[in-house]
Amino acid sequence: QGILERLDAGEIVIGDGGFVFALEKRGYVKAGPWTPEATVEHPEAVRQLHREFLRAGSNVLQTFTFYASEDKLENRGNYVAEKISCHKVNEAACDIAREVANEGDALVAGGVSQTPSYLSCKDKTEVKAAFQKQLEVFVKKNVDFLIAEYFEHVEEAVWAVEVLKESGKPVAATMCIGPEGDMHGVSPGQCAVQLVKAGASIVGVNCHFDPETSIETVRLMKEGLQAAKLKAHLMCQPLAFHTPDCGKQGFIDLPEFPFGLEPRIATRWDIQKYARKAYDLGIRFIGGCCGFEPYHIRAIAEELAPERGFLPEASEKHGSWGDNLSMHTKPWVRARARKEYWENLKPASGRPYCPCMSKPDGWGVTKGAKELMQQKEATTEQQLKELFQKKKF
Amino acid sequence: QGILERLDAGEIVIGDGGFVFALEKRGYVKAGPWTPEATVEHPEAVRQLHREFLRAGSNVLQTFTFYASEDKLENRGNYVAEKISCHKVNEAACDIAREVANEGDALVAGGVSQTPSYLSCKDKTEVKAAFQKQLEVFVKKNVDFLIAEYFEHVEEAVWAVEVLKESGKPVAATMCIGPEGDMHGVSPGQCAVQLVKAGASIVGVNCHFDPETSIETVRLMKEGLQAAKLKAHLMCQPLAFHTPDCGKQGFIDLPEFPFGLEPRIATRWDIQKYARKAYDLGIRFIGGCCGFEPYHIRAIAEELAPERGFLPEASEKHGSWGDNLSMHTKPWVRARARKEYWENLKPASGRPYCPCMSKPDGWGVTKGAKELMQQKEATTEQQLKELFQKKKF
Amino acid sequence: QGILERLDAGEIVIGDGGFVFALEKRGYVKAGPWTPEATVEHPEAVRQLHREFLRAGSNVLQTFTFYASEDKLENRGNYVAEKISCHKVNEAACDIAREVANEGDALVAGGVSQTPSYLSCKDKTEVKAAFQKQLEVFVKKNVDFLIAEYFEHVEEAVWAVEVLKESGKPVAATMCIGPEGDMHGVSPGQCAVQLVKAGASIVGVNCHFDPETSIETVRLMKEGLQAAKLKAHLMCQPLAFHTPDCGKQGFIDLPEFPFGLEPRIATRWDIQKYARKAYDLGIRFIGGCCGFEPYHIRAIAEELAPERGFLPEASEKHGSWGDNLSMHTKPWVRARARKEYWENLKPASGRPYCPCMSKPDGWGVTKGAKELMQQKEATTEQQLKELFQKKKF
Amino acid sequence: QGILERLDAGEIVIGDGGFVFALEKRGYVKAGPWTPEATVEHPEAVRQLHREFLRAGSNVLQTFTFYASEDKLENRGNYVAEKISCHKVNEAACDIAREVANEGDALVAGGVSQTPSYLSCKDKTEVKAAFQKQLEVFVKKNVDFLIAEYFEHVEEAVWAVEVLKESGKPVAATMCIGPEGDMHGVSPGQCAVQLVKAGASIVGVNCHFDPETSIETVRLMKEGLQAAKLKAHLMCQPLAFHTPDCGKQGFIDLPEFPFGLEPRIATRWDIQKYARKAYDLGIRFIGGCCGFEPYHIRAIAEELAPERGFLPEASEKHGSWGDNLSMHTKPWVRARARKEYWENLKPASGRPYCPCMSKPDGWGVTKGAKELMQQKEATTEQQLKELFQKKKF
Repeated sequence: QGILERLDAGEIVIGDGGFVFALEKRGYVKAGPWTPEATVEHPEAVRQLHREFLRAGSNVLQTFTFYASEDKLENRGNYVAEKISCHKVNEAACDIAREVANEGDALVAGGVSQTPSYLSCKDKTEVKAAFQKQLEVFVKKNVDFLIAEYFEHVEEAVWAVEVLKESGKPVAATMCIGPEGDMHGVSPGQCAVQLVKAGASIVGVNCHFDPETSIETVRLMKEGLQAAKLKAHLMCQPLAFHTPDCGKQGFIDLPEFPFGLEPRIATRWDIQKYARKAYDLGIRFIGGCCGFEPYHIRAIAEELAPERGFLPEASEKHGSWGDNLSMHTKPWVRARARKEYWENLKPASGRPYCPCMSKPDGWGVTKGAKELMQQKEATTEQQLKELFQKKKF
Repeated sequence: QGILERLDAGEIVIGDGGFVFALEKRGYVKAGPWTPEATVEHPEAVRQLHREFLRAGSNVLQTFTFYASEDKLENRGNYVAEKISCHKVNEAACDIAREVANEGDALVAGGVSQTPSYLSCKDKTEVKAAFQKQLEVFVKKNVDFLIAEYFEHVEEAVWAVEVLKESGKPVAATMCIGPEGDMHGVSPGQCAVQLVKAGASIVGVNCHFDPETSIETVRLMKEGLQAAKLKAHLMCQPLAFHTPDCGKQGFIDLPEFPFGLEPRIATRWDIQKYARKAYDLGIRFIGGCCGFEPYHIRAIAEELAPERGFLPEASEKHGSWGDNLSMHTKPWVRARARKEYWENLKPASGRPYCPCMSKPDGWGVTKGAKELMQQKEATTEQQLKELFQKKKF
Repeated sequence: QGILERLDAGEIVIGDGGFVFALEKRGYVKAGPWTPEATVEHPEAVRQLHREFLRAGSNVLQTFTFYASEDKLENRGNYVAEKISCHKVNEAACDIAREVANEGDALVAGGVSQTPSYLSCKDKTEVKAAFQKQLEVFVKKNVDFLIAEYFEHVEEAVWAVEVLKESGKPVAATMCIGPEGDMHGVSPGQCAVQLVKAGASIVGVNCHFDPETSIETVRLMKEGLQAAKLKAHLMCQPLAFHTPDCGKQGFIDLPEFPFGLEPRIATRWDIQKYARKAYDLGIRFIGGCCGFEPYHIRAIAEELAPERGFLPEASEKHGSWGDNLSMHTKPWVRARARKEYWENLKPASGRPYCPCMSKPDGWGVTKGAKELMQQKEATTEQQLKELFQKKKF
Repeated sequence: QGILERLDAGEIVIGDGGFVFALEKRGYVKAGPWTPEATVEHPEAVRQLHREFLRAGSNVLQTFTFYASEDKLENRGNYVAEKISCHKVNEAACDIAREVANEGDALVAGGVSQTPSYLSCKDKTEVKAAFQKQLEVFVKKNVDFLIAEYFEHVEEAVWAVEVLKESGKPVAATMCIGPEGDMHGVSPGQCAVQLVKAGASIVGVNCHFDPETSIETVRLMKEGLQAAKLKAHLMCQPLAFHTPDCGKQGFIDLPEFPFGLEPRIATRWDIQKYARKAYDLGIRFIGGCCGFEPYHIRAIAEELAPERGFLPEASEKHGSWGDNLSMHTKPWVRARARKEYWENLKPASGRPYCPCMSKPDGWGVTKGAKELMQQKEATTEQQLKELFQKKKF
């Protein structure tokens, strides 16, 4: 059954987790460029991560084609024409995903994401050409459906959806925005409306914000669709990091991004709460993005097991709510083998010299700085730096 | 070259990270039992983790035989005689480690750890028999050297060393203790002395405490050896969790163990500081235990690259001190591409409703409770529970 | 010169601090009732606090008549008709304030605040009668001007202003609201408009929120007045507690209210920042409410000394930005004798087991609970309690 | 009845709180010099604070003669021979304390504290002369007993006790040390022994550390006395600040000292716990030092009311464990009117950008720096500064 048949039937579809962050920690992706040449260089590592998500309960395996547009690969300097073409990266990604999907009954989704071409103000034709190039591979490899994800500007997301729709396959579209909307100020509700009108059957958000904030953003999308009398399935793939202190552009602007985010990592219990809230809002495509490891995906599947009627394979190695601790030799550890304990735990950081919240850089800066930047008056970096240094907390 | 040749020549030897925690998150190990039947059930997952540590710079691959003594496997109920024998688990662990070690030039170390037999007061003969059984496999599979690790009682560790020494292979021994010493009150210095006298060529600590505490414990071991005019190489494989609030038995007693430790996870920069401090103290076998992921091991290799003269393979995907961020589009993110930034960052938890420190359960309890327990007066769990509830912070 | 002459001339007028909290800690006011019978029982204590504020720079001494309406005194059970009449409490308050004001050149302001009559739905006539009774004393004692303060509902505040205006004296009006507006949902801008139309010459906020939030609320009032093309002087008398985690009804609903607020107390440097921000927004009547001790008021006077041209008397015992530390024997303490040090200090709590933020009770509760309460469906306390217990963080 | 009669009879004697910090906030004392010329300049302010402590339950009023030795007053530049002599300051302090003591039944204690003469290495004769000069006033004014307090070196404290003993009045002696002992490395136990041998009838600690640490120090003193088979009454007057992160020299070295300590202020409930612990250890002279406001002293009196059989006067304005909240209009505030609530509250700081702990300056520095300083090798401030900057956390 395809993605839309499943969702139309009311099924819960569980997405997968974040490849670039997981593989960066495993040693196969470079932070900064975040490009997926590992599909060619180290297919076994990519295959293993897919397999772990499958075991954890993912019903959808996304091809590891994040930032795999030709312009991006060139731009980030990881592309050596003779050795690894954009084509090869995307093809290998499809092959690996399909191989693992066949080990279970998951769907394969081909994915495109925002392009440097758009950010450097190339025109619609040129931007669409980048998506077109990736789509050719997805069609050739016959992925089950398509996802346009990680877009900060709805305009570019709409272009991506328009390209992907040409394939005739179902299209999902998620933006990396928060409740304040896209970088041009378009509200989440309006973004959703435009995406659905462009042809997306599933809309939502991914990346940039924590589960709570992301659910709120999807709620606003849902309201926008209702007001416009449009119908679409809802989807949510947030960070597995706590980011209550984010500004408009999300975790990129937090001082901890990308190498100091550890204290913010969500526990499996945080993710169970997320899964429940997402479900309660009517979201039926529930997954994760950066920071989501296999055990976080398993937490979604376990939380929603009563609704779905089954547990994922990896639950053979996981007791519900810590119940494997009930055999521990120490009574105070045995006392942790219960839902109430983990649900209410407020985990300590072990970092007494660190704060709880950070002030985001960049768009989190004073309104004055932001206005200056918009007015192009702060043309030099030195000026910007001075502005940032004026930040007083 | 063998482990002792390398250490005798003054080389820095980098260990690997923690298998049970990493594979628990990947879906292959059950928290609580922590047994390694994945070597038989899912060898590809174990192989991939070994490979990631090798790429990250590990010179030693430990066989995934933690808690793989026959009594433990039986005790934890994961052992089905007909299907997966203790023998098979240990053999598969050796084969996988050797296979990956051969992809580079790493050594394979066979490992034994504390047994339920000892904890349930079985006699010396019986406990030694458990180690003997594992050793037979290690000898047959011809591992390069042996590690007796994760012992809370030096008496049992000494027994393990005595058994392992019979093989004629070099033996390392690490205890999971902090500065307060073993569970019977033997000081770190005395533990080290006893282990060296029993035949260990390398001594130190692993697990249970954070890097800073573990280094302090090794420092005490070093002092003990010096006072006793004994020589041995020093080794340290701590947690990658911040645990300044631990009691005598380490992170087991923290309320967050084992499913809420995320906010305590060390950053790569924390680990670089650890590597430097360990080196400065004269420790030359530097690795990690629970919580150490491949990128933590890489951080050790990168910090000590000036001394070693080379970077690990996985550094092809990692710029030193974040320098890949220097090409980021936003100036405030580019500003993070420098050592000073990451060295001084105090990362926020994003958890404003959580504290920084926890009160440990169990041995962290009031002296009164501890004494009662030692006097066997608190025989019932109810009594213990009441004692714990009296804890006022 | 009267209050309006001063403000019209562009002068900065410094208010005083919070009497009920300061005198509660000194042993003369009961937390809960918060009534001011100390004016009769212990005039020397009230006088001394007035004197300290005067020395600290206050240009206005408010009569200690908070919650001194007859209905309140009766309601709170502190009123014994035979011994201390409402009349006596108010008269004594006026006499003491005047006596101290004459020691300098401060103005005396008579104050009224919200009444139990209004909260228990008494009609306009009855509520106004309560204010009328206090006003008689203020007129007899010839205070310099009047303040209607600490109103949660603009309707009652308007009634108070109408009564006070009858005296012919200038009237200031401050509400204890935040950016979300009054308890009936009237926005700050609308509140300001109604108060000015009722006759207030000075409007703003007092109590319930921290300086930052209060300034934001006054900003909204200012915008409301500008939109309505009305003119009034702006006034701000916030808490000296950090309350970023407040709900709509402010610090009352924080779990720490009123006996555990210590970790939230503002430093003198926090208050200097507040004074500067208030000034920059155009607020010219700048004081404090609960938590403001004399040294906080002095901090306002010191921050604005450049604009005002003089320091308060109590600055003879206070070096600007800690400069008295420059003679300390220890170099590291001497290093604290500078503005940059104190401006940037992030003071630690010394409470590693406590969080940074609290979830407010009551109106901070889930929307569902709030709606239920409004619908009168949760009539019993048991029902409410159950609702609160469902709060999950 | 005198102090010794009371203590010998097993009575609990409640001390008073900290004058210099309280009066600094009220505008009468300069932070840094901390001298008590307010006794002459503003006697009404000193009198009022004495009165508040008396009402709160103090059985002992200490003359406000802290740092009132002639050398100190000269040294700190507050002394103008023509205007305010050392003699006058001390005399006025005695008169005011006696006047207020007579309003109840409190004892008056004359106090001396450490001198600049000692710190600048003057000889015994000269140091003793400074104490002698103050003692003359105490004898003339006939105080009830004497306290030598706030000594960092037991040698000087012993000299003070020797001088005070000449008067024939009972002498108490408290040092401002923690469990690590005095600045020359004399342990708390040895300090206590020396003080008792010099003639002190009451020994203990005051200032520099929080209640918990101070009680631990007194415990060590008690052990020292027991080991030496000496008898003395025990006394404790700690800070009302949480200082778990202090180094050897206490809160002076914390970055927040003295103008950013607010988040560390103890609640009344913290003080009740302190009073109970102090009592349980056998301390019978229980008071406070810097940070102790009248309501903190009242908390001691309320906690020990069951043992003493009466409440202090100021409890007329204070319900036990918040019970005055039981009449609040909001059910969630009424729910705070109970002991369990306040006992278990973990109060939030409202400061999400601040840490929980600080690293102390100065003696908290690395051992290397300390040794250097002791060896006089770090003669220049520049060298010290460089050492401090090397501190890495």
